[in-house]
Parts: sequence; structure tokens; C-alpha cells
Amino acid sequence: MTTSITIPSACDFHLHLRQSEMMKMVTPQVAAGGVSLAYIMPNLQPPITNTDMALKYKQELEALAPQVTFYMTLYLSPELTVDEVRKASKAGIAGVKSYPRGVTTNSDAGIESYEIYYPVFQAMEEEGMVLNLHGEIPSDNNKNICVMNAEEKFLPQLEKIHNAFPKLKIVLEHATSEAAVQMVKRLGDTVACSITVHHLQLIVDDWAGQAHHFCKPVAKYPQDRQALREVVASGHPRFFLGTDSAPHPSHVKETAHAHAGVFTTPLVLPYLAKIFDSMGALDKLENFACHFGRQFYGLTQKEGFEDRKVTLVKEENVVVPAGYQISSENPQAGTVVPFLANKDIGWKIAQNFC
Amino acid sequence: MTTSITIPSACDFHLHLRQSEMMKMVTPQVAAGGVSLAYIMPNLQPPITNTDMALKYKQELEALAPQVTFYMTLYLSPELTVDEVRKASKAGIAGVKSYPRGVTTNSDAGIESYEIYYPVFQAMEEEGMVLNLHGEIPSDNNKNICVMNAEEKFLPQLEKIHNAFPKLKIVLEHATSEAAVQMVKRLGDTVACSITVHHLQLIVDDWAGQAHHFCKPVAKYPQDRQALREVVASGHPRFFLGTDSAPHPSHVKETAHAHAGVFTTPLVLPYLAKIFDSMGALDKLENFACHFGRQFYGLTQKEGFEDRKVTLVKEENVVVPAGYQISSENPQAGTVVPFLANKDIGWKIAQNFC
Repeated sequence: MTTSITIPSACDFHLHLRQSEMMKMVTPQVAAGGVSLAYIMPNLQPPITNTDMALKYKQELEALAPQVTFYMTLYLSPELTVDEVRKASKAGIAGVKSYPRGVTTNSDAGIESYEIYYPVFQAMEEEGMVLNLHGEIPSDNNKNICVMNAEEKFLPQLEKIHNAFPKLKIVLEHATSEAAVQMVKRLGDTVACSITVHHLQLIVDDWAGQAHHFCKPVAKYPQDRQALREVVASGHPRFFLGTDSAPHPSHVKETAHAHAGVFTTPLVLPYLAKIFDSMGALDKLENFACHFGRQFYGLTQKEGFEDRKVTLVKEENVVVPAGYQISSENPQAGTVVPFLANKDIGWKIAQNFC
Repeated sequence: MTTSITIPSACDFHLHLRQSEMMKMVTPQVAAGGVSLAYIMPNLQPPITNTDMALKYKQELEALAPQVTFYMTLYLSPELTVDEVRKASKAGIAGVKSYPRGVTTNSDAGIESYEIYYPVFQAMEEEGMVLNLHGEIPSDNNKNICVMNAEEKFLPQLEKIHNAFPKLKIVLEHATSEAAVQMVKRLGDTVACSITVHHLQLIVDDWAGQAHHFCKPVAKYPQDRQALREVVASGHPRFFLGTDSAPHPSHVKETAHAHAGVFTTPLVLPYLAKIFDSMGALDKLENFACHFGRQFYGLTQKEGFEDRKVTLVKEENVVVPAGYQISSENPQAGTVVPFLANKDIGWKIAQNFC
């Protein structure tokens, strides 16, 4: 029985680090979870729509977590020009994130039609930048579209963009469905999926009445979760870690209208060790969490990081904290309840990379 | 434009009135919602498993709402004998309710296999009693069964029971799916559906992160809701009102693990007027809410009630209360948040039956 594994520090290719007090609490937790490279989502208020905003935000994050390598993505909007894409690429910004309008947190400024962005996609393809797709279309009663099939109904859009720009690197973010897994496998080497911790763990039953398991896209059927588990357990190189960890204070979760998001940042690798262990696939954890994402993006960590290791140990009674206080100076800011709070996850980081 | 309708007082063929303080608050609200006949669910703690318990509970309810006719149903369990069924029938108990184990509130004592109850069903058929089925099977990852398809996967059980007891009156309670509508239409005159207010209004998106819309069975796809709307708008006589109104204090709704249930009792007819009006089917409201259920069950209201009328008026700014205090003597008991709290539902009872 495996009771300990040692792997390189991990890479999280989909992370929300927020602003202000929340950013100050969450950002230092990235390394605590065993992650040394993080790809940061741009859905702030206002969204990160240009290079200068992204670099300024990156500096803030680096000041809070100097041990982590941050890569940035811009929020796709009509403001984003071809010239700005070229400028962003030169500045080391790795991608552009597309949110369909109104489907998740701070996506009101998102896109409605992709064709108007084809010149931007053309420039991204030439620059080697990655297109990050939130792959859901808005619910539509007349077309029977709702949160349960919004991802599957989006997939023709993914295929259309891929066909128009076959060399453009595209990541279908936080995939949740068997249909998405099948399509991404089929579309070939320039199309990948990020997979979250919580979508490897949850199904629809788990967010029925459970606010801390509610996220967008929602977790789906058992066979969808099984498809996600099988593709990562198979060691497929285009399916890699992107946690979509999205902290909210508990007072906006445990309420009549819960905000969408699951907070996994402080314990990313222990959660994953638990899940991969339960699948009998601990040997596939390293590639999923540490290598496949960087290979797809072609990114590097800060010098020296590739040799730094994380040792995970299987133990009884590794209980997830009940909550993380957002600010000791401002207790009214509340706490963030992490994924599987108060549960024994059976794995912990015995030796971290920093 | 219709701005007013007058119909008889209504019949709610699926209602939870609870116990203790909650019962005392909710029971008088039955008449407030325009309902004069209520069929009361037996999932108390402990469950109502025999005639004496049912009659005692009925007396408690009558004392709280003398203007309402109450009919009772027993909780199906191994304790229920053929002799008890005959005794219950003679005492005016109208049905027996079956809960599959573990699928909803207080259903731990529910059934796992129906064959062992065939002698009971035989006696019920002979006595003309109704079998009330909570039509869901427990989730099972290996069979891809979850809250979204638990009702559809139950339907073969319904058909099997019907085939074994073709003259037994069966109600598939709180139907939520197009598949259920189709099967019940097909099975013929002894099989019916109760339909809730909230399942005519909600889809899965509405309970994603919204605790007050979370109930079991969960609301499903847009086309499922459309099937429910179409069958009631068509005036089908085997689809009738059963609200499944299920009050919980807000502190067990707005929390990490919300209890399942939507509270519609105080405003049943105004909610229905809004929904039937939006479907252009106000002329079908009376049969759905007042007649079809009693026809199927063969029940009568207290003397004189059939002539008492409720007048509903369409108005602007009919705002649903934010909450109902459970006990003025014990404020810590909290409040129940009703369906569509703080929303303008556009219809009110201008003249009630009592």
C-alpha cells in the first residue's frame, strides 16, 4: 500500500485569487496547497482587459507570494485589439479568457458571438497564446438549455473555433461532462481541458442543497464524473489540473442565493492525492498536476522550481479546516469554507516545496 | 384581459403540516391560501403508521383549522397489516404513502421492495384506498442514477405495481418529468399525478445555489417543466393539485446543508393564478385545483363547503411576504421563507371562502 509519494511542486492552470482582503488571504495559500505555478483568471471588478492591468495585478500577487510563478490571462471583450494581443504576448501574458455572457461570477461583460473575435484569435494563434474557454451557453427554456447541459450544448462552438484556427491552442476550462471529454480527445493536439479537484469528486446530488458544492459549471451525472476520472486516470496529456478554486465568504454561500464557487487552494495536492488514490491511479497524479499543463502551454516556472518537491503522506485523521478567516484586522469580512470542510481527507503535505 | 376569477375553495392533495410549533403556525395558513380540503402527509417523527396515530393527528389539525376538511394517509412500512388497512379504511383514512428509503425528509423508514406489500395493496384495492408513491429511487453511481433522473428511473416500478393491481388507485406524487407525465397518461384511469405549484414554476437552474427552491424531487429540465405545464393547461383530469408544501425554518435552509422543501401553503391559489394566467389557461385552474383531485379520490368536503367560493384578482404589487414567524412566543424558532418571497406575484385572494 502506498503511504507516501513525492512529486514536483504543482501547476494550477485555472485559479481565482480575487482582490483586496480576499486576495491577501488566498494568495499565500497557493504554495500551501503544493502549487508553485498558477494561471490567474481575469474576472475581477473591473475585469482585466489589457496588458497593463494584468501586469499590475501580477505584481500585487507576486508581492503576496514571491515563491509562486504567476501567469496571466486577459478577459476577452471588444476592448481587446490585435495590437493589444501582440503587446500582451510580448509581456508574457499567456492567454485570453472567454466568458459567455451571464453564466458565472462577473461574466456580465462576456461574449455573445465568437466571429467578431476572429482577428484576435488569428493574432493569438500567431503569437502562440492560449484561448481559455468557459464552455457554457446561457440557459434558454425554448431550447431546453439549462445548467445541466449548458456545457454539452457549447461544444459545437468549441469545434467551430478549432476548425477555424486549428493551430490555436484552446483550453476548455473546468470540463464537467463525458461529452466534453470525448470531444476534446477527438479534436487533437491543440485542444485541451483543465479539470478541477471538485469535479473529480462531486455529482449533481452533492450540490443539491449544499451551497459549498455549488459552482459553475455545476457538477453533473455520475457517468460524467466517471468520464473525468477515467481520462485523468488514463494519463491523457491534454487533461490537466486547473482548480477553478473560487473563494467566497461564507455569508454569500450560506444564504438564499449562494455565489458559485468551491475553494480548494489551501489543500490542492492533498485533495488530489485522496482522489487519485481512491481511483488506484496515484502514479498518474504527477503528470496531471505538475507536467501536462505546462507542456501544453509551453510555460516555465521560476528558476530552480522544477527541482523542488512536495511529499504527500497518507494518514488517518487529516481533517480539513472548518474555515479560513479572510482578515484578522477585519473579522466582519468573514471566513471562507474550504472544500470538504471538517472532513477527513486522509492525505497531507508532509514536506512542501518551500 | 381577465382581471378576476371566482372558483370554489381548493383541494391540496399533498401537504406537510409538521408538528408542534411549526404545525400551529402552518395549519391555519391552509385556508388562507384558498384551500378547504387537505390531504396530509404522514412523515412525522415518528411516522404515522397506523389508524390511531392518524386520527389523533387529524384531531390536532382540525382543532387548529376547523374550517378545513382533512384527509389522512398512512406511512407504508412493515408494521402496516392487511387488518390495519381495513381498519384505516373504515376510519376514513384515504390512502397509504410510500417513501423509498433515504430519498427525502424523514424517509429513513421507507420501502426497499414493493412485493412484500402486495397483500397490503390487495386490501387497499378492495377498500378503494389510494396508494401515494414518492416516485424516486435512491441515487446509485454505478447505474448513473442521481437526483436528476431518480423519478424517470422509478417509473418501471409504478408500471409494475399498476399491472399487478390494475384497479388500485395510485397517485405518482409531485411529478417533475416529461417521462412521468407520459407514463401516467398512458396507464389509464386508476393512475394519476399530483403536481406542485413550484414544479410548474422552477427548473434546475432555479435551485442551483438557491436553497428556498431546493426540494425533492428536484425541479428538472425546461422541457420537463413544459410537459407539466402542458398537461395541466390541457385540462387532463388525472393531473391535479398537490402542493407538497414543506415548511422549514430559514436557519435550516440558508446553511451549508439545506433541508428539502418549498413553502407555498399561505398563497396557493394566488401562485396558481399567476402560473395559469401566464400559460393563458386560467379557465383550467378550477378543475386542476378544485375538482380533479376529489374526483379521483372520491372524497367530499365538509357539508356546505362545495358552495363556498374564492375570488382571485389580478393586481400590481402583490408582494409575497419575506417570511412567516413560526412562534411569537418563541422567536428563536425562526421564520419560514415562502416561495417567491419578496416577489410581486400579481394575483391575490380578494374574497376567501371563510
